Amino acid sequence: MTDPFVIVGGDAAGLSAASKLKRDAPSRDVVVFERGRWVSYAHCGTPYFVEGVVERLTDLLSLSPAAINERGIDLRREAEVTEIRPAERLVSVTEADGSTYDQPYGELLVATGGRAATDPIPGTDTDGVFTMHGLDSAAAVRAFLSDPKTFTVDSLGGGEFVDEASVSRYGSMRPPNRVAVVGGGYVGVEMAEAFSAWNLDVHLFQRGDRLLTPFGDAVSERVEAHLEANGVTLHLGAAVDELRGTDGRVTSVVCADGTALDVDAVLVGIGIRPNVELLERTDVELGESGAVAVDEFGRTSVDGIYAAGDCAEATHVVSGEPVWMPLGLTANRAGRAIGQTVAGDPTPLGAVAGTAVVKAFDLECGRSGFVDTEAAQNAGFDPVSETITAGSRSGYYPGNAETAVTLVADRESGRLLGGSIVGRDRAAIRIDTVATALEAGLTVEAVERLDLAYAPPFSPVWDPVLVAAKVLNGSIST
Amino acid sequence: MTDPFVIVGGDAAGLSAASKLKRDAPSRDVVVFERGRWVSYAHCGTPYFVEGVVERLTDLLSLSPAAINERGIDLRREAEVTEIRPAERLVSVTEADGSTYDQPYGELLVATGGRAATDPIPGTDTDGVFTMHGLDSAAAVRAFLSDPKTFTVDSLGGGEFVDEASVSRYGSMRPPNRVAVVGGGYVGVEMAEAFSAWNLDVHLFQRGDRLLTPFGDAVSERVEAHLEANGVTLHLGAAVDELRGTDGRVTSVVCADGTALDVDAVLVGIGIRPNVELLERTDVELGESGAVAVDEFGRTSVDGIYAAGDCAEATHVVSGEPVWMPLGLTANRAGRAIGQTVAGDPTPLGAVAGTAVVKAFDLECGRSGFVDTEAAQNAGFDPVSETITAGSRSGYYPGNAETAVTLVADRESGRLLGGSIVGRDRAAIRIDTVATALEAGLTVEAVERLDLAYAPPFSPVWDPVLVAAKVLNGSIST
Repeated sequence: MTDPFVIVGGDAAGLSAASKLKRDAPSRDVVVFERGRWVSYAHCGTPYFVEGVVERLTDLLSLSPAAINERGIDLRREAEVTEIRPAERLVSVTEADGSTYDQPYGELLVATGGRAATDPIPGTDTDGVFTMHGLDSAAAVRAFLSDPKTFTVDSLGGGEFVDEASVSRYGSMRPPNRVAVVGGGYVGVEMAEAFSAWNLDVHLFQRGDRLLTPFGDAVSERVEAHLEANGVTLHLGAAVDELRGTDGRVTSVVCADGTALDVDAVLVGIGIRPNVELLERTDVELGESGAVAVDEFGRTSVDGIYAAGDCAEATHVVSGEPVWMPLGLTANRAGRAIGQTVAGDPTPLGAVAGTAVVKAFDLECGRSGFVDTEAAQNAGFDPVSETITAGSRSGYYPGNAETAVTLVADRESGRLLGGSIVGRDRAAIRIDTVATALEAGLTVEAVERLDLAYAPPFSPVWDPVLVAAKVLNGSIST
Repeated sequence: MTDPFVIVGGDAAGLSAASKLKRDAPSRDVVVFERGRWVSYAHCGTPYFVEGVVERLTDLLSLSPAAINERGIDLRREAEVTEIRPAERLVSVTEADGSTYDQPYGELLVATGGRAATDPIPGTDTDGVFTMHGLDSAAAVRAFLSDPKTFTVDSLGGGEFVDEASVSRYGSMRPPNRVAVVGGGYVGVEMAEAFSAWNLDVHLFQRGDRLLTPFGDAVSERVEAHLEANGVTLHLGAAVDELRGTDGRVTSVVCADGTALDVDAVLVGIGIRPNVELLERTDVELGESGAVAVDEFGRTSVDGIYAAGDCAEATHVVSGEPVWMPLGLTANRAGRAIGQTVAGDPTPLGAVAGTAVVKAFDLECGRSGFVDTEAAQNAGFDPVSETITAGSRSGYYPGNAETAVTLVADRESGRLLGGSIVGRDRAAIRIDTVATALEAGLTVEAVERLDLAYAPPFSPVWDPVLVAAKVLNGSIST
């Protein structure tokens, strides 16, 4: 009998792979090890749970442990894989009660995800300092924001999964008045919105001069202005050097230039790192990014071991190079493809464009491919970039909103390399046109000729993406 | 000196061509003949003017006659081209005052548009019966809906362009209580919404069994239910045979089965026909559709004569065959390309996918390419179709709305042939993913791997289009 398909990590990539294998090859055994209590949760939904628009923690679960078991998946929670032994095709497991055992595998999927980066900021272990990674931190933040007079553990709607000790402690503290969000990426922007919904005095610190840098200047400018218009105080070019506390509770953030701001809470959202420690004593190769290197089927350099999700690299659709872009769809898709491959139908993971969308209050932002011309240049292109603004609807139709589109193309070949978009009306979803064009390798001239939707309530005759293509094509041709 | 570029028709195609030529080759003379008073108006906006969400008729003008003249275009309104004489490279013109003259041309663009079909229904010349083609009919309908006690010609915001006699007459009549909309295409659906905004008793008559047939069954079903939920009475499979009147004013619609309904107003929206009468005595060839046959640059069969817009055919992006799909973007784009070609830079028109979107109250619908499998079969494909429903956002995020997507692909090649979409939340604009994939000739397998946008407020991890591709790809593979 074949040994089971063993999966380390019970979130998007791991459970997508497990489910797909059980669907396509029901007779195969699948064992999923998850070192935490939570499985299959929507990481991207946590800011909205903190904000309060999502009521219950369990709303964020795609699948309950019971539903996972119903699929015939042997899910083992609070069971940590401590070592991979490829020569013996075994993993070593430690259960919550301290017991240990070895589990043989036929194929192994490393889907260990990422973790919130906190280095190099000292003081992140102080009370009142949070990262936004995992439901435990989301629960703790919302408990902290709640009125201690009325707070109950049940109000979080997390059932049996909640870390009661942590949330009870935070639920009993005096709620913060002023919060520092450290990091101006999408987590920082979403959390600034979430805290604003609780009427906190929100301060956003960003080391660089711009927010949302992967979205490009046109988006950054609009988002910065929009956050300020919504009462968020921006500290740009402000590197937070230290978090200070009194009696173990955070009291201020200190910047590299010596300025300090008194705060009652800090959310550190300065990116994530791939969880690859488990592979250190194996021959599984990491890529330049530090995440696991994989081929087009998600196979690592060691026979029988796959990797997927936030711990693994992927192939960039434009450059064809390996990149590390930890995003939700990428993890789900790669897991599903690997499940299908393990079931006997070799299925490529597909390439990634780094398509990302983010909401900043009522502003919608999207990006895909190369937006930064320097990055495009480093990938061997001769990038030309144009930014336009156009209406989201016919000018005479109510709700028409100014929409800015940036498109980047290669001068020589005319190939579209990437783009971004920002606006209040159906802006984010329009980035799908760019993502689709990138997958197809369309030139900007072909994009200009796309037969896109037009009706006064939804789009002007020339969709903003078409307007941008028209202008960019003009720039390239001259 | 080269004779001018002469254009017959002062709307989307004609003025796009004129503007592009003056921009690219300012020294060329351009003469535009328009037999009516209105030029450069947004036909697709007229239902919203009737509804009242667009206040003024002049809001619907993309360019005023003055702005057109400022571009150096010699615009001649109320000047009808009565004959084309290719052998002499002349057109014969009759002005409003009855004077006539011949105008020589270097190149000629026929952009005569379409007209509302009313045949074979007798009685359409009765008072209270309207088509929705052109601003004069839109003005008359809104005048008729207005309270005669307060109506003024000025309230239409049409300035000098308004047909005062017509609107004054309708403005003085008792407004209708019950209206029949004849035709269940997008004009019929939009006008049913427009009349509902005036609290009329709206009855929609459709000869066939379904509304919005080019959008496919999944869209039709949802739209039918939604119109009924909004108080519109549907008469499906009801062929209107005659419109009857008393004292010259419409009083009832009579169906083929003899049933009749008393009404005070009728809107006939049963499609349009290409205006090609001007070409009857020339050698300019028409296509099978009855519209003008053109090559990839918009050239007709006669040297120096181009055609574009609602009077001309275009090439279908999937079948490669000539089709007649009179739509706004197609007209604008073809006009622009012809202007560029005439300026000396031969520019293909691009293919059309028949992408169309329509709003039915708060329901959004889109379609592109082949949705009807019979049509796809006739074009030589072996079509497979799947319809799915999926959320528009993450399930836990407020505003998540059920979205139905139909995709059609060729069994043999896996190539995507078309699709449609319907839902309440950002549904219509998602058809752009399908339109872009069609232009690129993507397989449904490639569509399944698209790196589309995901963020809880805008899209679930698997966008509804990806879910449909996944299911359709499964059907094709088995």
